[in-house]
Amino acid sequence: MSGSDHGAKMLHKIINVTVRDVRFPTSLEQHGSDAMHTDPDYSVAYVLVDTDSGLKGFGFTFTLGKGTEIVVCAVEALAGLVVGKSLQEIVSNFRGFYQLLTSDGQMRWLGPEKGVIHLAAAAVLNAVWDLWARSEGKDPKQIVSCIDFRYITDVLTEEEALDILVKAQEGKQQREDQMLKEGYPAYTTSCAWLGYSDQQLQQLCTDALDNGWTKFKVKVGADLEDDKRRCRLIRQMIGPSNTLMIDANQRWDVAEAICWVSSLAEFKPLWIEEPTSPDDILGHAAISKCHNRVMFKQFLQASALQFLQIDSCRLGSVNENLAVLLMAHKFKVPVCPHAGGVGLCELVQHLILFDYICVSASLHNRMCEYVDHLHEHFTSPVVIRNAHYMPPKDPGYSCEMLELSVKRHSYPEGEVWKLHMKK
Amino acid sequence: MSGSDHGAKMLHKIINVTVRDVRFPTSLEQHGSDAMHTDPDYSVAYVLVDTDSGLKGFGFTFTLGKGTEIVVCAVEALAGLVVGKSLQEIVSNFRGFYQLLTSDGQMRWLGPEKGVIHLAAAAVLNAVWDLWARSEGKDPKQIVSCIDFRYITDVLTEEEALDILVKAQEGKQQREDQMLKEGYPAYTTSCAWLGYSDQQLQQLCTDALDNGWTKFKVKVGADLEDDKRRCRLIRQMIGPSNTLMIDANQRWDVAEAICWVSSLAEFKPLWIEEPTSPDDILGHAAISKCHNRVMFKQFLQASALQFLQIDSCRLGSVNENLAVLLMAHKFKVPVCPHAGGVGLCELVQHLILFDYICVSASLHNRMCEYVDHLHEHFTSPVVIRNAHYMPPKDPGYSCEMLELSVKRHSYPEGEVWKLHMKK
Repeated sequence: MSGSDHGAKMLHKIINVTVRDVRFPTSLEQHGSDAMHTDPDYSVAYVLVDTDSGLKGFGFTFTLGKGTEIVVCAVEALAGLVVGKSLQEIVSNFRGFYQLLTSDGQMRWLGPEKGVIHLAAAAVLNAVWDLWARSEGKDPKQIVSCIDFRYITDVLTEEEALDILVKAQEGKQQREDQMLKEGYPAYTTSCAWLGYSDQQLQQLCTDALDNGWTKFKVKVGADLEDDKRRCRLIRQMIGPSNTLMIDANQRWDVAEAICWVSSLAEFKPLWIEEPTSPDDILGHAAISKCHNRVMFKQFLQASALQFLQIDSCRLGSVNENLAVLLMAHKFKVPVCPHAGGVGLCELVQHLILFDYICVSASLHNRMCEYVDHLHEHFTSPVVIRNAHYMPPKDPGYSCEMLELSVKRHSYPEGEVWKLHMKK
Repeated sequence: MSGSDHGAKMLHKIINVTVRDVRFPTSLEQHGSDAMHTDPDYSVAYVLVDTDSGLKGFGFTFTLGKGTEIVVCAVEALAGLVVGKSLQEIVSNFRGFYQLLTSDGQMRWLGPEKGVIHLAAAAVLNAVWDLWARSEGKDPKQIVSCIDFRYITDVLTEEEALDILVKAQEGKQQREDQMLKEGYPAYTTSCAWLGYSDQQLQQLCTDALDNGWTKFKVKVGADLEDDKRRCRLIRQMIGPSNTLMIDANQRWDVAEAICWVSSLAEFKPLWIEEPTSPDDILGHAAISKCHNRVMFKQFLQASALQFLQIDSCRLGSVNENLAVLLMAHKFKVPVCPHAGGVGLCELVQHLILFDYICVSASLHNRMCEYVDHLHEHFTSPVVIRNAHYMPPKDPGYSCEMLELSVKRHSYPEGEVWKLHMKK
C-alpha cells in the first residue's frame, strides 16, 4: 500500500514476542513517592519483538512494582495476535491492528481500553512503533491511518485530522531546525518527591537552578502543613518569576480538593494536577492522566482541564496519543506530557516533538515533564541541555534498554532483587 | 466491634486463597453473542477462601474466555494481602479492607479501580462476602461501614447513606414477605442473542411467553436491516403490551447511535443499552455497565442514564454496589441489574432484593435481567417462578459451584477443553 515494500526481505515478519518483568528498587530512597504511591519500585513490562529479517523492536509499559507480573501475563495473552504478522501488513492497516489488540471479542471484556489489558497493549504497540521507526518515515495520510476514531467522531473526524496535519506542514522545516538547535522546554519533578526531607529538597533545588531549570513540580496531598512548608521553601528558592506546579496524585474528594488548593494558592501554582479520581470528569477540577481517548475527549468537551498531560505508556501507544494530540489542538489546550517513571521521558519526547513540528506549531504554555532517574539503563537516553529536551537522533522509539540492566533488574531472579530479598 | 465476636473460634482466620480458571465453551452455539462479542466462552476466575475454622467462602468474577488467566494472575497478586487476616478483622473495618485491595501503593497504578485489577478485587471481595453471609446478619451501620466514600462525597456522604438505610427500615418486613411470596420481577435476554437464527428466536420466544415472561431484550448493532427484521419479529410475537429492550454492546459512535436507534424506534424499545463507549459520559446517550462508583456518580450527575444497570462482578463486589444503589436512590433512577454470564444472576439477586427491601422500597420501572444458561453448575442456583426471581434461602452469596463442574471446565486441563482442543 505505502512505499515501504522493498521486496520480501523488508516485510519483517514477526516471529517471536518476549516479555520480561524488570523492576528498580526505587522505594529504598523514596524516589517517585507521592500522596497515593508512597513506595513505588519503578518497573516495566519490557517487550521484545523479533522479526525474520533480524530487525528488532523494543517496547514497554511503566508500572510501580507489584503486579508487573499481571501485565507480563497480559502481554503474553496478546502475543498470540501478533506473532506471524509482518510489519508491512501491520502498518498498511495500523488502525486495524490497533483494534485487533484492543477489541478482541473475548479480551475486550477485561477493559475495554483501560487497566492492565490497555497497559499491555501499549507495551506491544510501543515495540511495533519502535520497529517501524527503525525502518522508515511517515506522511500525514499514514499517520491518520494509525488512529482508531471509534467513539470520538463526534469531536474529531478522519477528515479533520488530516486537514490539521496537512495545514501544519507549513513551517515544518523551520520548527525542526529550531528543535535541533534549542530543544523542547522541560520542567523538573526530581526535586520534590513527597518522601524527601527539606534538606534534600533544598539541595536538589539549588542544583537544578544552577543547571538552568526554571519550572518545578512539587508533590502534595498527604499533610496540609507539610505542603505549605514545602511549597513556601521552593517558592522562596526559585523566586516569583520561575514556575511552580503542584500534584496531588488523586488524593482528594472534590470539596477537599477545592479547600486544600485554596490554602496553597498563595504559592501561585501554575496548575494543580490530579486533585481527585482520574475517572471524575464532572469533578469541578482540572484532572489529567486519563486512560484512553474517550476520557480525554470528555475532559476537553467539559473544559475540565487547562493543560493536557498525555502518557506514552498508559494510552494505547503512539496510535491513541495521536488522536489525543489532534483533539487537544482542536480545543486549543496546550499539551504538557507526563513523564518520569522508567523511560517515559525517552518515549514522550518523540510525541511532544511531533506535536510541535507537525500539529500545534506552538510552544506557548507548553513544557514537558522531566525526572532525572534511570536514564542510564537505556541505549539512547534523553539528552537535556539547559532545561530543554534535545531531539533524539538514533533511529527508533528510544525504547531499548541495556541488556545488562535488564538482566540485573529482572524480577525476581536478577541479582539486584536476589540481594534485596536476602536482607 | 460488632456483635460477631463469639470467641476465638469465630474469628475465621483466612489461611489460604486459591483461584481457578474455569471456562464454558458457549461460543460453540453462539450463546451470549452480541455486536462486539461475537464468540464469548463464558468463564470465571473462581476463588476459594479457606479459614482455620473450616468455614469456606466462594467468589468469582465473570470473563469471556481468553485472558481469564490474566485475572487469575491478578487474584494471586491480591491473595498476599488477604491471607492471615481474619473475617472478624475484615468486617470490623470492611472499608479499610476494600481500600487495601483497591488502593495498594504499587498495584493501584494498574487501575485504579478498573479493568483486570478491579475484576480480580471483585472476585476476592465476593468470596469474603460469601464467607460473611454464611456466618451472620448485618445492620445499617455495618452496611455503611463497608462503603468507600472516596471520590463520591460531593454526591453522597456517609451520613446521608445511613439516613437512607434507616428510613427504609419502615415496611421492611412486609417487603421481605412480599419477595418470599412473589419474587422480584425479571426480564429475559435468552431469546435473542445476535448469533441466533430467526427460527431459534421464534422458538425461544414462544417458550418464554408460555413460561410467563413479559419483558424481552434483543441484541442489536451489527447490521441495521437484520436488527429491524429481528425486532419486528419479536414485537409481533410479544404484542404491544409486553416490553422490549435493545442492547448494542458499545458498538456505535455517538451520531451513529442516534441515527440507528431512530430507525428502531418504531418497535418501541423501553431502553437502549450501551450504544457507545462505556467511558463516554457526555455522549448524549443512555449508557450503562460502568466500571466503578466514580463513573456511575457522573452518569447520574449528567442525567446520562434513565435506568441504572449494576454488575456484581465488574464493580468492587457488594461494597461498591452498595454505594451505587444508594446514589441511584438519591437521584431517583431505577436500578435494573445486568446479569447472565456465569453466575451473575446468582449474585445479583442478593443485591436487587437488598435494594427493594432496604433502600428503594419500590418496584416501579424495575426488573432484573435473566439469562437461562449455566445455572446447573451452582450448588444454589437461582429459582425463577413466573418470570420472577424467588429469594435464595441457602446461607451465603450463592457463589459456590459444583466441584465436578469446576473440574470438567478447568482451563486448559479439564476434560471439556481437552476434548475441544483435540477437534
